[in-house]
Order: sequence, then C-alpha cells, then structure tokens
Amino acid sequence: MTDSVTAALLVIGDEILSGRTKDKNIGYIADYLTAIGIDLCEVRVVADVEGDIAAAVNALRQRYTYLFTTGGIGPTHDDITADSVARAFGVPIDHDPRAVALLKERYQDHELTEARLRMARIPEGADLILNPISKAPGFRIGNVIVMAGVPSIMQAMLDLVAPTLRTGARMVVETIEAGSLGEGAYGDGLALVAKEHADVSIGSYPSFTSTGFNNQIVVRGKDPAAVARASEAVRALVVSLKSDRVPL
Amino acid sequence: MTDSVTAALLVIGDEILSGRTKDKNIGYIADYLTAIGIDLCEVRVVADVEGDIAAAVNALRQRYTYLFTTGGIGPTHDDITADSVARAFGVPIDHDPRAVALLKERYQDHELTEARLRMARIPEGADLILNPISKAPGFRIGNVIVMAGVPSIMQAMLDLVAPTLRTGARMVVETIEAGSLGEGAYGDGLALVAKEHADVSIGSYPSFTSTGFNNQIVVRGKDPAAVARASEAVRALVVSLKSDRVPL
Repeated sequence: MTDSVTAALLVIGDEILSGRTKDKNIGYIADYLTAIGIDLCEVRVVADVEGDIAAAVNALRQRYTYLFTTGGIGPTHDDITADSVARAFGVPIDHDPRAVALLKERYQDHELTEARLRMARIPEGADLILNPISKAPGFRIGNVIVMAGVPSIMQAMLDLVAPTLRTGARMVVETIEAGSLGEGAYGDGLALVAKEHADVSIGSYPSFTSTGFNNQIVVRGKDPAAVARASEAVRALVVSLKSDRVPL
Repeated sequence: MTDSVTAALLVIGDEILSGRTKDKNIGYIADYLTAIGIDLCEVRVVADVEGDIAAAVNALRQRYTYLFTTGGIGPTHDDITADSVARAFGVPIDHDPRAVALLKERYQDHELTEARLRMARIPEGADLILNPISKAPGFRIGNVIVMAGVPSIMQAMLDLVAPTLRTGARMVVETIEAGSLGEGAYGDGLALVAKEHADVSIGSYPSFTSTGFNNQIVVRGKDPAAVARASEAVRALVVSLKSDRVPL
C-alpha cells in the first residue's frame, strides 16, 4: 500500500531566527513522523508576527494532510500562536472553559493572572491536547496541531496526539556505506541506478570529517521489495568502484 | 540608524525532512547574520523537488534583501539546487568555464566524470563563491547566495561572501534572568513594559530542566539606549516579583 500521509511543520519564534535558541524540535519531529508513516514535506520558521504566522498556517494546512506548529503558546505578550491560528481559520478566540479548568488544577484562583489565562485562549471549534508537564494545553483545529515549543512538553503532546492521526505506509530505509569512495566517482553510476529504480528515492550524503569525506548512499521507499532491489544495485555499484579512491 | 537588512534561509534536502540528517546550519547562520547586522526573518526546509525549490526561491528572494540556500550542490543526481535556481530566475544553466577550471585544480582530466562536472553547472549571470575545502564552488545570482550543505564548507563560503553583503545596524541584546520566577507571574507586567517600550522587542523564553522551569527575558533592538531603558524596566519588574515563586 502506498497511501501517502503528508505533513508540514511551522516553528514559531523570533528566538530561533536570532540564533538565541537552537531548535531541537525539527529533527525530533522529522524522526517521529517518519517512524509512524507520515511524510514531513516542508518546514518553515517564522517570527512572532501574527500576519506572517497566519499566512504560513493557511499556506501549509491547505497543502498537506497535517500541519504541526511549535512555540508561542505560553503566557507572555509574545505568545501569539493561538490568536494567529484563529485568524488563519477566521474563527473567534476566547478563554476556553476546558482549558481554564486545566489551569485550575495547577494554579489557585489568585494565581490565575491575566497572563496565565492567556494560555486558556483557544480558537473556537478546537480540541485540546493535554499537557502532562505544566497543564497549559495545546490544541487541534481542523488538520492543524498546535504544540508547545519547550521540547519536553512538545514531545509529551506529540505522544498524545499521534495515536489520533491517520498514518500511511512506513518508509523503508537502507543505508549503503560508500566511505571514502567519492561522490564524483559514483555519481554517474548512481544516476543510472536511480533512473532504473524510479520507484524509490536515492540520496547521497557526504559528511566531512578530519580524515576527509565520508559518504553514505540512502535508499528510501514504501515498497520493501523495491528498496531491496535498488539497494542491491547500489551495493554492486559501490563494490565495483572501490578501486577509485578520489574523494568527493 | 535603523536601516534594516533582511534575509531568508532555504535549507534544501530530503535528508533533513526524513530526520536522517540533523540540520546544523540554521542555528549557525542565524547567529552569524545576527552578528553582522542582517536580520534573518524566515527559514524554510524543502525536499529535493525542483518545482518546490524554485517556488521557494522566488517567494523568498522577492521578500527579503538576501536569500541564502544550503544543500544540493554536490555531484549526484539528487543535487538539483543549481538547476532549480536557474529555473527560478528563468536563465540558462550550463558548465561554467570558471567552475570547470576550479575543479581541474583538484581533479585530473580523467577524473572529471560527468557527475563531478555537474558541480560546475552554474546559472548564467552568477558569480562564483569559492570553496577552499573541496573546490566545487557555490554561487551568487542576484540577491540569492547558494552554498553547500556540508557545514564546514558552508561556513567557509559564508566567510567569503559576508564581506560583500550590505549590512544594517547590529542588534543589541540584553538578557534578564528570571530564573524560577514564573512567566505567568511576570507576564502581565511584562506586557505593560513591552507596550511602554515599543521601540524594542521583548521575548520571554522558558526552558524546562530537571529542577523545573528556568526563564529568561530577552530585550532586543538596534538603539542601544532604548534597549538599556527597556532592560532596566524589565529588571525592576523581576526584582519586584521575586516573592511570587509559582513556576510558569
């Protein structure tokens, strides 16, 4: 079965763009979605600007099966994700009684400042995503899944929402080590293999270490037999070229 | 002076979206551009699909002063960045004699396979960006700067291209440690400070550690006096609230 379920990720926050915070969510979510059979097709990082967030939400939710967002759902004035998503959907937003009840499990009434109550602002029609760490929930509206930016909280939310998602066939991946055999040495042959095995995707990934380039060839696809056939062809190519040792 | 120079970054490669490779370039480039006075305003990660790359190039180069790209300029069939950029600009692309000459510094004639020569495919009208590590160049066409994806090579290319870029006023940043003082405790006060100091941007950044939340408030702006004034107000707020110890 080749039923394909796609996703985009929208990372929201000035702090990623300024370099202050190094994103840890993109790689985690990429691994996670790949493992459950959802193809992450695009990532965007945008600043804390309501119009920009809303525009990105609308562009991405229309193109992919799911859109995940991280960041901007805390209690401070720069947390504007919920308002931006409401704007994207053209729905009202207000304090959600279910979310207020969750916050009351953590805070006493006199601690429920206006700022903390911001975390209960949920667009109309959304379902809540529980936050087992600090209570303030994420939410899902339509195909858009809004999560926290703090990695441990995002990960807990993703665990809760994942079982509710439609998933497709899982990607089967084989990695063939080319080692110091140069990309330029196998590139022509690999292009032929890729053409002959158009039912899989073949990538070549160099990394540069203190001892020179180290190359890996990765075969990916949803049909295990097709991946096995293409991998065998790549392996045969690499073996036949191992005498050519010019790097890259 | 508040002359603003903006940029976007386009990260190209299936391997980032599948989780196979964890991107190391976004954070590096964010820090680098911030330090030289260029505001990184948006990042996108797209797959190795020519139409998608070209569309992203056109969307981003029209919106920002500069567009940087990383990835997809190697010798294998999945390296399609140069062709995609040529398509975005509507210009021809072919083996560039200057780029071929660079490759000949590294490879003997019989080693210049068709695959390696792919690395000399440069859109018409582009200037080369030298690659001190493995010779295959990046290039600049219009306001688009095309660099390698391997971090050490990308970094060397960025060092070479940076001195040729227009830069604006550098961002001045002050970080105020709120520690375990909760975002929800200072959120209302911080919103007021932000409103009173609209000439700077104020962000609140929680991180969650084994001992609970640790919060930092960051004031950013291009006018050092304005940043100092706002930071002083934030500091006064935090000191006044230190008795309220409810986290988040």
